[in-house]
Amino acid sequence: MNQVIANMSASLDGFIADQADGIDQLFGWMGNGEVEVPTAVEWATFKMSPASARYMRDALAGVGALIAGRHLFDITQGWGGTHPLGVPVVVVTHEPPQDWPHTENFTFVDSVEKAVEVARQAAGDKNVVVASAKIAQQCLNAGLLDAINVDLVPVLLGEGVRWFENLSTAPVRLGDPAVIEGNGVTHLAYPVIK
Amino acid sequence: MNQVIANMSASLDGFIADQADGIDQLFGWMGNGEVEVPTAVEWATFKMSPASARYMRDALAGVGALIAGRHLFDITQGWGGTHPLGVPVVVVTHEPPQDWPHTENFTFVDSVEKAVEVARQAAGDKNVVVASAKIAQQCLNAGLLDAINVDLVPVLLGEGVRWFENLSTAPVRLGDPAVIEGNGVTHLAYPVIK
Repeated sequence: MNQVIANMSASLDGFIADQADGIDQLFGWMGNGEVEVPTAVEWATFKMSPASARYMRDALAGVGALIAGRHLFDITQGWGGTHPLGVPVVVVTHEPPQDWPHTENFTFVDSVEKAVEVARQAAGDKNVVVASAKIAQQCLNAGLLDAINVDLVPVLLGEGVRWFENLSTAPVRLGDPAVIEGNGVTHLAYPVIK
Repeated sequence: MNQVIANMSASLDGFIADQADGIDQLFGWMGNGEVEVPTAVEWATFKMSPASARYMRDALAGVGALIAGRHLFDITQGWGGTHPLGVPVVVVTHEPPQDWPHTENFTFVDSVEKAVEVARQAAGDKNVVVASAKIAQQCLNAGLLDAINVDLVPVLLGEGVRWFENLSTAPVRLGDPAVIEGNGVTHLAYPVIK
């Protein structure tokens, strides 16, 4: 059975962006190493530490679909029509864009429940990754999240966009993580205990 | 040279207590294992996983003094006069208690600068541990913190008492952590980059 995994880069104090949506402090590990990890698009090739590169290749190989929120879709301009993961993207929004041309790669739905259903179907036996904080919160509250994979970056932002807030079922217990030590990041993969 | 180390148990989303100052969700790792780790007091003996026990014994052996805030001192009732670490305690407060009998183990000062100075002196060549969130914040803002040791607990609290907020120097960059994988906890020791 495929898993629904929330995955983001986060600061040690739990933020996934600064107050201006900036992520400069959190994505250095994707470009600070010697090992190239190509993606599905020409404009994004990672250069990582060997440990992070192995982690990322495994993650890329295991992902079959992505769920994003409308905010992330908008600020990335829909990744230009192809997400770097090269997988179908399901966007949760109450107002689907009317003129979005890349309909073959994108589906717009109005709830996280529908998003998980559509993404699971698209992913086949691969995993579904949830890439937006608010959507991850909603999935967690709805009992739809199987794992939380944190790319934990050694920085304190003090304030910003929190990954997990508005949790209706807190405290949410997790299992101990699988740990991979990178350079400028510690990858922690936590199972959600249901 | 001894180090000034902020050390606390924290949830994955960055809280060191729930909104009612509760810590039940965060200290299970200190009692969920088979290896006994005695402390300086009879009322506190840890029972930990082998990995956490090794970590804790090393930590205990390396600590020479503790800095706490007044709130922590009050809610623990001054640990009954002897902190489980068995080291001198420096309490930061503007209103020292008038009737505190255990003066041999406790010093009251009115700033984090004085606290670090007094604690360093008391610790000799051992480390100083900062055990309160607000004091850790003030030390970090004053450039007095050398390391942040997180006992990262696999739980999301959603809300509560944050370890790091009001950071005047954010973003605060840290080095990659030393990692020890426990049971119900991941010990991450981060150097502060100055």
